[in-house]
This record gives sequence, C-alpha cells and structure tokens, in this order.
Amino acid sequence: MSSNHDERDRSEGLTTHPSDEPTRVHGIVTRFFGDQSGALLAKIGGTSISLELGADAKDDCAVLDVSGPISLVFGSDYVRGPKFALYEQGLLSDYDIGYYLVIANISDIAAMGATPLAITTVVRYPPTMTDADFESLIEGIRDAASACDVMNVGGDIGGAERTILSAAAIGACSRGSAITRSGARAGDVLCLTGAVGIAGAAVAYFGNDRKRVRLSDDLEAELLAAWKRPVARTTEGRILGTHHLATACQDTSDGLKATIEQLAAASGVGFVVDEAAVPVHSSTAAVAQLLELETTALALSASVDFQLAFTVPPEMTDTCAALFAEEGKDLYVIGTATDDDALVLRRSDGTHGPLPGVTWRHQEGDIAKLAAGSPRR
Amino acid sequence: MSSNHDERDRSEGLTTHPSDEPTRVHGIVTRFFGDQSGALLAKIGGTSISLELGADAKDDCAVLDVSGPISLVFGSDYVRGPKFALYEQGLLSDYDIGYYLVIANISDIAAMGATPLAITTVVRYPPTMTDADFESLIEGIRDAASACDVMNVGGDIGGAERTILSAAAIGACSRGSAITRSGARAGDVLCLTGAVGIAGAAVAYFGNDRKRVRLSDDLEAELLAAWKRPVARTTEGRILGTHHLATACQDTSDGLKATIEQLAAASGVGFVVDEAAVPVHSSTAAVAQLLELETTALALSASVDFQLAFTVPPEMTDTCAALFAEEGKDLYVIGTATDDDALVLRRSDGTHGPLPGVTWRHQEGDIAKLAAGSPRR
Repeated sequence: MSSNHDERDRSEGLTTHPSDEPTRVHGIVTRFFGDQSGALLAKIGGTSISLELGADAKDDCAVLDVSGPISLVFGSDYVRGPKFALYEQGLLSDYDIGYYLVIANISDIAAMGATPLAITTVVRYPPTMTDADFESLIEGIRDAASACDVMNVGGDIGGAERTILSAAAIGACSRGSAITRSGARAGDVLCLTGAVGIAGAAVAYFGNDRKRVRLSDDLEAELLAAWKRPVARTTEGRILGTHHLATACQDTSDGLKATIEQLAAASGVGFVVDEAAVPVHSSTAAVAQLLELETTALALSASVDFQLAFTVPPEMTDTCAALFAEEGKDLYVIGTATDDDALVLRRSDGTHGPLPGVTWRHQEGDIAKLAAGSPRR
Repeated sequence: MSSNHDERDRSEGLTTHPSDEPTRVHGIVTRFFGDQSGALLAKIGGTSISLELGADAKDDCAVLDVSGPISLVFGSDYVRGPKFALYEQGLLSDYDIGYYLVIANISDIAAMGATPLAITTVVRYPPTMTDADFESLIEGIRDAASACDVMNVGGDIGGAERTILSAAAIGACSRGSAITRSGARAGDVLCLTGAVGIAGAAVAYFGNDRKRVRLSDDLEAELLAAWKRPVARTTEGRILGTHHLATACQDTSDGLKATIEQLAAASGVGFVVDEAAVPVHSSTAAVAQLLELETTALALSASVDFQLAFTVPPEMTDTCAALFAEEGKDLYVIGTATDDDALVLRRSDGTHGPLPGVTWRHQEGDIAKLAAGSPRR
C-alpha cells in the first residue's frame, strides 16, 4: 500500500480539471492495470486458473481460463462510499472509499472459504471530480486489490450525477468445498478472527457532537482505520476452506449480533456466546465509556468489520488454532452452537440474557442514534 | 416475459408503502429466485457447469461448480436507469430499467462468444420506493434473466438516496475460444446482427420538443422498444464462439461508429463500410426525416442497441449466414477490413467519406443536441 499517493500523484503534474471519459479510462487502465493478461491467478488443488485477458485488454469482459474441476464463488456488493457518514464529515478520502469497495467484496469471497481471484469495479463519478481525486480513488482500488492478492480485471468507469461505487468478485475453491452459512451443528464451537464493533464505534464517536471530551489521537486513528484500511480475512478463509475446518462461515459486515442471528437461522441451531471471550478493541471500549454505552452492546451492534464468524467441530479447534498461528492470524473462541434456537449471552457475572446490541444492515445512522440517545453526563 | 405483471402484482394485495429491507429481501428472494440451487447452467464441450448455491441459499456468494477446462468471461456494467432521459420523461417504468440492467450485462458476455451463465444484480432504492414499484423492478430483472436463459444468483439489495442499478455477469466458452476485439485481419468481412441507431433515435425524437408532428403510435412503440425490451444477442454470440467463426467481436452499446473505431484500433485494421448495407429500422429513418438529420449519421451515432458487430474471414461468411438462419437470426454484411487505419463510408452514390455520426459513450444528451441543433423547418 502506498502511503504517499496523494503527494506523488500531484507531483506528477496531474491536472485538477476533470478529463473526459476516454482519456481517463485509457490513462488509468494503462498506468494502473497494465500487463495483467497471462498471469496465473491461483492453483486450486491441481487446477490452474489464469487470467487470459485482464483490464489491459480493454475488451467487453475479462477472461479467466480454468483447467479442471473447481467451485467458483461469485458475489457483488455496492458500497455507500461518498454517503458514508465519515466521508461526509471529511474523515475519509476518495482513496479510502476506493480501498473499502474492494475489501467489502473480497470479504464475501473469504467468507466462502475460497481464494479470491479477480474483481470488477464500477466507478461512476460526478462531472466535478478532478483527475487527481479520480486517480486517488482508483489507486485505492488498486492497492486494496493488491493487498488481497487479486486483480481488478475490469468494470465500468464513467460519469454519473455523483460518485457511485459497486463491484463484483469471483473466487475459487476445491470443487464442493465452499463454506455456507447453513452447516453449523449443535456442539460446534463459534469462532471469530478478530475484534468486532470498531467500525460502528467509529460512527458512534465521530457522529456524536454532544461528547465533551475527545479520545487520544491514537484511539481516534484506530477507529478510523476500520474504515480507511479494512482487512478482508482472506488467509483465514483460505485455511478454513482448504482444510475443511469450518461447518459454517459468514463475514461480520452486518455486525456480530446480526451475523450470529443469520448463522443460527441458516443452520437451525442456537448459540451461547461468552461475553468475556468476545474480542473488543480498546478503542471500542473507550467509545462505550465516553458515550455511556454498554461495551458488549456496542461491540455486537451493526458494524462493518469484515471479520469472519464461523463454526468448527470441537475436535478440530486445536488444528484450526495451530494453522491460524502458523500464518500469524488470531482465533477467538467465543461460544458454542446449541440444539435449540435461543441466542444467549453468558455474561461475565455468570447471568444469562439475550444478545445485546442494535442490528441493522449498513445503517450507521442507527448506531449514531444509539449513541445520541444514551444518558448524558 | 410476463406482459401483465403490473396488474397481477397489485391484485395480489401488495402494499404501496415501502417495506423494510429484510422483509423485502426475504420476500423477493423466496418468491422470485427460489429453487435455483442444483440447476445445470450449461454444458460447454464436455464440461458441465452447475449452480451449487443460488440466490435461494442467501449466502455470502453464489457457488458455481465446474467439472473441466473452460474459459470464464466476467464483466460488469452500471446503467443510468432512473437517469435515462426516457425514464425521467415517464416513458420507461421500473420494470423496464430492471429488464435493461440484465440485458446490458449479458450483451457483454454474448460479445465474447460465450454462453451466459449467471448474473448478480445491485439494486439500491430510495426510501420512498413502494413495494409494488420495487417488485416491478425485480420482476424486470427476473424476466430479462429468463429471456437470456441465465439465473440472477445474488447481488446487493438495499437502500440508498436514489435508485442505483449495477450488475455483473459471468459466462463460459470452450477454453481459449473467447472472441476479443483484436483479431480482425484485412480482408475479413464486417457483419452486424441487426439494425443500429434505434435507441439513439428514440432519445433524439422523444427529447426534441420542437418537433411539429408526431410519428405514428406504431413507430413510437418501435422506438421505445429499444429501451423497454432490448435483446442481448446470446444465440448469435454462442454460434460465433462455438464455431470459431468470428475473428473479432464487440457489442454496439456505444453506437456503431464508436464500435467500428474500437474494433479497428484494437485489431490494427481499417474498415470500408457500405452505406447501403447498414440495416436501418424504419423508425430510425422516420426520426431522421422528421428532425432533418442524415439517416446514416443518426444510425451510426451513439445508441445503445446491443447488436453484435464482428468480423468473419470471407470464406466463412456463408457458413455463418447458414448457422444464423437455422436459428432464425439475421446476418448483415456491411463492410470489409482493410490494411490501413482509415475508416471509410462508401456512400450509396459511389462517393467515399469519413464515417458520419456522433460518438460518445452513453451520452444520450449529445444525440438530443444533434437533433436540437438541426435546421428548423
């Protein structure tokens, strides 16, 4: 990831006026996505998948060559991007929302236990967007694709009334080994790849104008990082898929509570979640304290964190932890699947209750409301 | 395609208020896209491609199982939809723009000579959109997918500030047989699957408020049909790919002039186009006459017609025509590739000149300007 992209781009003499569409498409494709065609994308078992034609071919579609049996996974996500509350507040840049677009789409591939292969991106921009801002956005896409080891092989670049970002991604795994949401069985262990609730805490914090004190710069930076440099859990997903470890898996882009609800409904199980085991980042705890919210409720509420939540048969948990550790990845065991349909939080004090938190798909506003509606000091 | 969808949906007691997102997603997926999983999508040579998990699985991604070597083609298109001039004028419905979204994306698959397999659609809607209008849009997507013999296997349904439509499609062909834009050679014959310029003529006609007389209802309906029920040339594309007939191919979604320019640039050839051979629909000719435009200029200008323009070695032309005829499809031979880079129109009167028309990608406004700027009666 380039950390000085803004300065470098501008120093190369980029104009600040908006070029026309053919100029933009041609310049960008050549400079950012050249030399893709012919690349080996992945080897899945004995099956090679190569990129016969990439974005550099500028054809109607990209072409991927497959040599043998595989399962392809294929999904598509729109992102609010310019309508993110934090973008509107000036806290996210065009580079950031381009980066985010890729991660949101690749995260769905990871959640299937598949290796991501390629992404197509739709970038529509308003007439007023300068070349420099447009390039920054495309650079965010390129850098995120690079971070996920995928290629941005095409899509649709052109004008619109405002910036609109959407994408589609494909990945592959050994034939029949894609991980669904529906395979969890009673007794399976519920796991998580990392801390949840940070993205939601960021919206609650930066969207609350009644807060009397500010968090430290470091904590503010941690909160923003959830939006500026999200991470798709591709390594973890690939391990889960390759080693047939997970019985069910989903990313936490709806927040942990909603994710658990969806896994439970799809699999026909319930879950008991250990409050003390849920990983909560210090930034999230600090926001909860500052805004007088219950920390666990904030951590479980709607929050686009792109962690993986998955179930593993109990006898496989050690293997899973060992394989994750080999790659430097964390594994958190946070609960157990049960044979009823109840979703229970076992609180640190030994009592039981329903899962706390606000669930809503990509509705940052609700979290802000949760925060705004909290008792004032 | 259902012709009475509006009446039927409403008679089923659909509310006119906007349901919340989970209600909408659940209801739509179950009613419109149930029972997909397990379907055989296509057999390409000896390779089966089946849909392991479709939209009905409601998972992070769809899963396609591939049994052997193929080339996958993968592309993505945004469509203006609610910002189409004709939609803003009340001439297109939500059903129509949903239908259009699918065709625009499948057309790119056809242009690669591949068999379309599946599509993911992004449908974001404003808070004010009623359930009935939303369902109508989704029904348009379903019917267009059905017309193209593909499944809508997922995507992203949810709220936004306004209706936003984007999609991605995948298709497959025998490994290595995808048709690019770059294979045309001097001497190849330039062909077209049908009349061009109708969609552009529709915008010029309906967008011109200075016209003194109206065309007949039949001609107006023909003009609108280019937008309301566009056709992706999937049968023609599959014939071209399966029989290795075309050396280069592209759809005419940018208009014929732009398409010829792009094929020429990608292949390093020129073209001589016979004016008399370019198929022009009577509706387009009528608009040209009414607005005092040159008919060929209007036919070649920016116009989203989704025909295929392709080159065929001269000795293969008869085979191609015969295979098209077997399927009831038209083939128009409109010119020849040359070994220089000139793009020449051989006019009906025997003179030669540059290709006429206005090229711009999806800029319906320019066509309207062309019309508005024409000499007045």
